[in-house]
Amino acid sequence: MPNAADLLTDHPDKSTFDLHELSRAIQACLDCAAACSTCADACISEEGVADMRTCIRLDLDCADICVATAKILARPSPGSDTWRKLVETCARACRECAEECERHVAHKHCQQCAQICRECEAACQQLLTAAA
Amino acid sequence: MPNAADLLTDHPDKSTFDLHELSRAIQACLDCAAACSTCADACISEEGVADMRTCIRLDLDCADICVATAKILARPSPGSDTWRKLVETCARACRECAEECERHVAHKHCQQCAQICRECEAACQQLLTAAA
Amino acid sequence: MPNAADLLTDHPDKSTFDLHELSRAIQACLDCAAACSTCADACISEEGVADMRTCIRLDLDCADICVATAKILARPSPGSDTWRKLVETCARACRECAEECERHVAHKHCQQCAQICRECEAACQQLLTAAA
Amino acid sequence: MPNAADLLTDHPDKSTFDLHELSRAIQACLDCAAACSTCADACISEEGVADMRTCIRLDLDCADICVATAKILARPSPGSDTWRKLVETCARACRECAEECERHVAHKHCQQCAQICRECEAACQQLLTAAA
Repeated sequence: MPNAADLLTDHPDKSTFDLHELSRAIQACLDCAAACSTCADACISEEGVADMRTCIRLDLDCADICVATAKILARPSPGSDTWRKLVETCARACRECAEECERHVAHKHCQQCAQICRECEAACQQLLTAAA
Repeated sequence: MPNAADLLTDHPDKSTFDLHELSRAIQACLDCAAACSTCADACISEEGVADMRTCIRLDLDCADICVATAKILARPSPGSDTWRKLVETCARACRECAEECERHVAHKHCQQCAQICRECEAACQQLLTAAA
Repeated sequence: MPNAADLLTDHPDKSTFDLHELSRAIQACLDCAAACSTCADACISEEGVADMRTCIRLDLDCADICVATAKILARPSPGSDTWRKLVETCARACRECAEECERHVAHKHCQQCAQICRECEAACQQLLTAAA
Repeated sequence: MPNAADLLTDHPDKSTFDLHELSRAIQACLDCAAACSTCADACISEEGVADMRTCIRLDLDCADICVATAKILARPSPGSDTWRKLVETCARACRECAEECERHVAHKHCQQCAQICRECEAACQQLLTAAA
């Protein structure tokens, strides 16, 4: 059974990307979008939802930025290098969401979401470095 | 290292979903969104792009529907059961995209995309059955 | 200054759509996506956020479905008729979100969001009827 | 009949944004997302689709970035100032898409799309200036 990363190797355009780093970044963005969406929904369910407002907001923003980043990276032919600015933005959204989630030590979903955000931040940074 | 599926098990609301089927469907939708995006971009690069118009269109539509479905399933608390109608729509978009991709036997990216679309269609159908 | 609707009239494919109804539906979906996003964020800010959980959830789901629907309708060439099932899903999400928002009579943002959701539901239904 | 901009005035949080500039930017992003989606689909239909590859790609990227930007601006409560970096990215994507569309003088959809992209770029820049 193939996965989305396998398609990148069959793409007829020689890409400007390191395909290993590109696949990792796409996968990390998609996993982060799902994790942040679940964390937001879990925060909304918490008894202390009034204390989770910033977490919900950063989760929702991070999810939307991760989705856009994943979609654009998954279409890897060179149109321009605006992808760099988007990946930098994504790394920053992930870092801020991770910092907020890390504060909520009582919520396992926040702790797990923070780890996934940190992995996505790292994958974005690595992609930027590999394509420098 | 956790992944997005782990967060579902920590969600404070008892879900109406079978968590195993739910995780599989979310993951399948995200992988399908990435695969269809890459297949569309690869089709645009093909020398015979004029023969790939329908494939590009079904790829782009399938990707957008899969993203919306994944995001909504990743927020699993019961608001309504509109998710069912969306998952049915997603299964249909995946089937149509698979059927078109399967026609393009010379393009490995289409063949791989078709398999990933079929897996997403199956995961959507399975989720609907499990939550019946 | 042109707007997005003007581009539809220049599209080289003869469309299956009534262009007036199509433009109205795209615009209604985009306005509804923005309204539901703002209503969700406003609900999160409310002192009584714990009473707004269902409203936040239906707002977020409606916004994501409206975005996908608008994007797919804005690419109007016939690939398949899955758009019908998506537009039906969108109409339903809008109706459910409107019904919930209408309950929150103290919040003007909910009352306004409900009206915009109802307009989007009507535009979706009208598009389905016009293309029958 | 209210529109999405009206909801911003009822938002309970004092925003960091100039509401007039914020509404204009959200509306410009949504209109640009629709215009770029239609332009991409029209380019795919053109007889000379092989000459439109870069235009299709920049259209699709611009549409996805505009959607994410509109959704995040429509949830205007301060979580962080990552929105600035996203709006800068959006302005750049719009400028690049406009520059490419302007080259295709024979296609009215490209000429109209370019104007809408320029308006979105200007609205993004103005929002950044107003919130400086």
